[in-house]
Amino acid sequence: MRRWNGWGEEGVVFPLSEKARVLLQEQLGPGTLPREATLEEVLSRVPPSRLPPHPLVSPDPEERLRHARGQSLPDWIFLRSGQIPAFPDGVAFPTTNEEVRALLAYAREVGARVIPYGGGTSVAGQVSVLPGEAPVLSLDLRRMNRLLRLDEKSLLATFEAGVQGPDLEAQLRAWGFTLGHFPQSFPYSTLGGWVATRSVGQESLRYGRIEDLFAGGRLEAPAGTLLLPSFPASAAGPDLKQAALGSEGRLGVLTEATVRIRPLPKAEAFAAVFFREFGEGLEAVRRMAQEEVPLSLVRLSTPEETAVNLALAGQSRGLALLEAWLALRGAGPGRALLLLGASGTRARVSQALGEALGIARAHGGVYAGQAPGRFWAHHRFRQPYLRNTLWEMGYAVDTLETAGTWNQVPRLLLAVEAVLREALGEEGERVYAFSHLSRVYPTGANLYTTYLFRLHRDPGTNLARWRKLKAAASQAIVAHGGTISHQHGVGTDHLPYLEAEKGPWGLEALRALCRALDPWGLMNPGKLV
Amino acid sequence: MRRWNGWGEEGVVFPLSEKARVLLQEQLGPGTLPREATLEEVLSRVPPSRLPPHPLVSPDPEERLRHARGQSLPDWIFLRSGQIPAFPDGVAFPTTNEEVRALLAYAREVGARVIPYGGGTSVAGQVSVLPGEAPVLSLDLRRMNRLLRLDEKSLLATFEAGVQGPDLEAQLRAWGFTLGHFPQSFPYSTLGGWVATRSVGQESLRYGRIEDLFAGGRLEAPAGTLLLPSFPASAAGPDLKQAALGSEGRLGVLTEATVRIRPLPKAEAFAAVFFREFGEGLEAVRRMAQEEVPLSLVRLSTPEETAVNLALAGQSRGLALLEAWLALRGAGPGRALLLLGASGTRARVSQALGEALGIARAHGGVYAGQAPGRFWAHHRFRQPYLRNTLWEMGYAVDTLETAGTWNQVPRLLLAVEAVLREALGEEGERVYAFSHLSRVYPTGANLYTTYLFRLHRDPGTNLARWRKLKAAASQAIVAHGGTISHQHGVGTDHLPYLEAEKGPWGLEALRALCRALDPWGLMNPGKLV
Ligand SMILES: Cc1cc2nc3c(=O)[nH]c(=O)nc-3n(C[C@H](O)[C@H](O)[C@H](O)COP(=O)(O)OP(=O)(O)OC[C@H]3O[C@@H](n4cnc5c(N)ncnc54)[C@H](O)[C@@H]3O)c2cc1C
Ligand SMILES: Cc1cc2nc3c(=O)[nH]c(=O)nc-3n(C[C@H](O)[C@H](O)[C@H](O)COP(=O)(O)OP(=O)(O)OC[C@H]3O[C@@H](n4cnc5c(N)ncnc54)[C@H](O)[C@@H]3O)c2cc1C
Repeated sequence: MRRWNGWGEEGVVFPLSEKARVLLQEQLGPGTLPREATLEEVLSRVPPSRLPPHPLVSPDPEERLRHARGQSLPDWIFLRSGQIPAFPDGVAFPTTNEEVRALLAYAREVGARVIPYGGGTSVAGQVSVLPGEAPVLSLDLRRMNRLLRLDEKSLLATFEAGVQGPDLEAQLRAWGFTLGHFPQSFPYSTLGGWVATRSVGQESLRYGRIEDLFAGGRLEAPAGTLLLPSFPASAAGPDLKQAALGSEGRLGVLTEATVRIRPLPKAEAFAAVFFREFGEGLEAVRRMAQEEVPLSLVRLSTPEETAVNLALAGQSRGLALLEAWLALRGAGPGRALLLLGASGTRARVSQALGEALGIARAHGGVYAGQAPGRFWAHHRFRQPYLRNTLWEMGYAVDTLETAGTWNQVPRLLLAVEAVLREALGEEGERVYAFSHLSRVYPTGANLYTTYLFRLHRDPGTNLARWRKLKAAASQAIVAHGGTISHQHGVGTDHLPYLEAEKGPWGLEALRALCRALDPWGLMNPGKLV
Repeated sequence: MRRWNGWGEEGVVFPLSEKARVLLQEQLGPGTLPREATLEEVLSRVPPSRLPPHPLVSPDPEERLRHARGQSLPDWIFLRSGQIPAFPDGVAFPTTNEEVRALLAYAREVGARVIPYGGGTSVAGQVSVLPGEAPVLSLDLRRMNRLLRLDEKSLLATFEAGVQGPDLEAQLRAWGFTLGHFPQSFPYSTLGGWVATRSVGQESLRYGRIEDLFAGGRLEAPAGTLLLPSFPASAAGPDLKQAALGSEGRLGVLTEATVRIRPLPKAEAFAAVFFREFGEGLEAVRRMAQEEVPLSLVRLSTPEETAVNLALAGQSRGLALLEAWLALRGAGPGRALLLLGASGTRARVSQALGEALGIARAHGGVYAGQAPGRFWAHHRFRQPYLRNTLWEMGYAVDTLETAGTWNQVPRLLLAVEAVLREALGEEGERVYAFSHLSRVYPTGANLYTTYLFRLHRDPGTNLARWRKLKAAASQAIVAHGGTISHQHGVGTDHLPYLEAEKGPWGLEALRALCRALDPWGLMNPGKLV
């Protein structure tokens, strides 16, 4: 059973190493766990549904609770405290296009708003139910999870869009293929959710972002059905796939998606490198990106994050030796960890890693074997469980991300971390922030910042702290030329900053698209635009 | 001076080899050259301008003639015969964003329609002036051709959008960079035109289509200015760059474009392979694409086109020897020519060609040296001059293109060629059609078909023949799952087929975009959508 107010499966726990506990105490002081609402308490507070009955719509309070919020930090604050601003009035689990269309017609008839719901792993408020006059219908697509067509000759697979990561990969693996899209939310997030949020997988350097993988599909919009054909490429006017990508449920419901697949890789390998300082690592990964070395993973941590990574790995003889050896080679406390990965044929893997290590060495990098990379790969889907552990220790953890050109990356990183560290100064609270780059491009890179702060007993205070931090970081991002989101989308949390990036006429163009496909304004209002 | 009624520079002639002349006579019979209108004749027929005077607008009849049509076959029929349906009422050559905005305001004021004009190399009617009540202003952007910014660290260059191919490359080469975008119209076509038509260069396999190269820009729309930021990537909602791409002047005027650039390649090499039959070649290039061999050029000709290529190369001892040797190796009259190219570092070039040749051999390909590839590369921008030569011999030549998934490519190719060959049967005229693939993708390929037919003395008959051929081929494309355009765009000629691909709601979405940015309907009406 999935946790209703946290990450992942009940019973699965990722304990923090002693070393990491100590580090946290040092950085933030002792945490306080606010009072947690029980499931029963919260269920007793779910108000009666405002939706007239429909055979496909469940008014069950637990379903409604489980579809009320996503996985952002504010979502957690509401869920854990039990102070949830609004619930959907009903949840439907359609299994066909026709049922989706019937539900859209019903929503129009009864004046309901519709929130398409995939895995509910949204971290920017995309699935959150907002208080309002109109009843809200959550449209859970996870029962639409079949592989509909597989074209092995053209390397295209068509799935129903509610298919979740592991199910999708299992269905492809049975035929010898992979999509290669592995966001950290992979165990729960869905193909439709990936498309609707322009998601980025951890091996996107090799496989591409979801926009590169999404070849076409079917969008059931209130106005009608939009079929997106799967041409290899087309010059026939603006590309409407690119309107579905990132549409966050505003244009309609994606019911089918055709994706570009690849044969399962024959080999996969990782390598770790330590740089004496972050700047050297930055130059090295820029060169790797610009020389188009065919890697699958490039993940460069700041010195702070490198320290956290080492602390998380715990205490072992191997690690102690590694640290001693690194110190000897000049990579002391300011060292920055770079993880590299490659996949494909054996020859290409070894060539790519060879080229990359050559570049790393030329920038002062010290090769540190394969173990750290394998450790990362092994734990990558377990890591989000740390959010539960940390919360229970009295710490809130959130992540922020952006992307900028190489020209801007260093300043962007400094600015975001600096404002986060200072944002709670007035309250006498510290913020622990550290970052990595996890996707490089020839023209720039993303930045992914994790920040922790202490929880207060009062959920309102926690929310206010988060708001301060989010506003400060978002303003810094905009001011330093970053995009308001490289991978998490817009939702409610980034909406105020979208105009800075799209401009007034860009927003108008997006609104016009919404009006064209959803003239009655049914779809997920208050999100994106 | 550029020809006003044909391709390229006056005085440049690409004569046809004797062998090719004979082949044409055999295939189509002798040609007839219809009467050609002189420049003076046509100029005398340019009607008075309906535009009130404006300091930036020239009413000069020759400018107006030179901006009346593009380079499609119907454009040629009108220009050569002098029976030109309509002329722009004025031509402006803005040099700044402010001038562009002033001209848009003027157009709105005087009720004029605006056609942005780049190199005028459009081949689907995109710049053609359509007869109508409203006066027409052609907005020639070629005086906006400066390199505005070069970010060597992020590999981004910002140009004014009217810059033509050779000028753009020269400005980049001065700094050691290239865009790598080489459509066959390169000598004249502009960056803005490439973006507005979703153009594809001949080395797009390495460098990407213009949609991969276009990082952002500035679109002056009647409603206001749309700034498209150059993030390396973003998840902040639908990508509006993708609305500018393929917008064909319908949304506004692209005045600046930021493009992704690369260091000039250190090495470049070509290889030719002959297959005994086309099907073997098709399987080979599919494997090259799906194994992602880093080539820059893959161009596979059908047996008919292979014969044409050999005929065009003329008679030489080398060629005679090649043909004898190929016959010996089993590649007889049904043989299909594959040209391969790679560029980059010396090591990567030789590795890519090595891998590709390995795959070719595994599919029965016979390596035929580097000469045919070098011959192609040398003549690639000269080839369009053959259109002049052929016309003057009494033959019309046109090209058609589409793309489909690998599953569909063989049937699509057969269907398009078959309907073309039969389309003029009723009139007792033959059509000579042959094709190649010039861009492969992991999921499919483009198809590029050249077709020739005899000119009639009457321009109306020529136009009717072209209409029949175009309709037959377009219907075959749609019926066999191809896109109506892989590289030339929509314009007037593909407009009737756009709904088959975008659907009614897709068209509605595009119209809504146009309304949002151009509420008064000034921009290039009658094109695209
Ligand atoms: C621990 C954790 C790690 C994460 N790691 C990553 C990561 O590595 N990379 C990354 O990109 N993101 C990541 N995310 C964010 C999140 O997983 C992605 O945004 C994901 O794409 C959401 O998919 P989902 O199926 O859960 O969609 P949901 O959260 O259910 O919905 C997200 C949005 O998409 C819309 N939507 C969903 N399905 C459809 C559909 N079929 N049709 C129309 N609209 C639809 C919803 O209305 C909503 O607006 C992470 C989140 C968490 C909690
Ligand atoms: C011989 C020949 C070979 C060709 N080879 C190729 C090829 O290999 N690949 C390929 O893709 N195409 C090819 N084409 C087609 C043509 O060259 C392309 O469509 C090219 O992109 C057009 O660019 P242009 O600057 O000439 O635009 P134009 O023909 O002037 O205009 C084309 C369209 O773009 C709009 N437009 C132009 N500039 C702007 C701007 N700044 N802002 C807004 N709208 C604008 C116009 O309004 C019009 O709708 C070829 C054409 C010919 C004649």
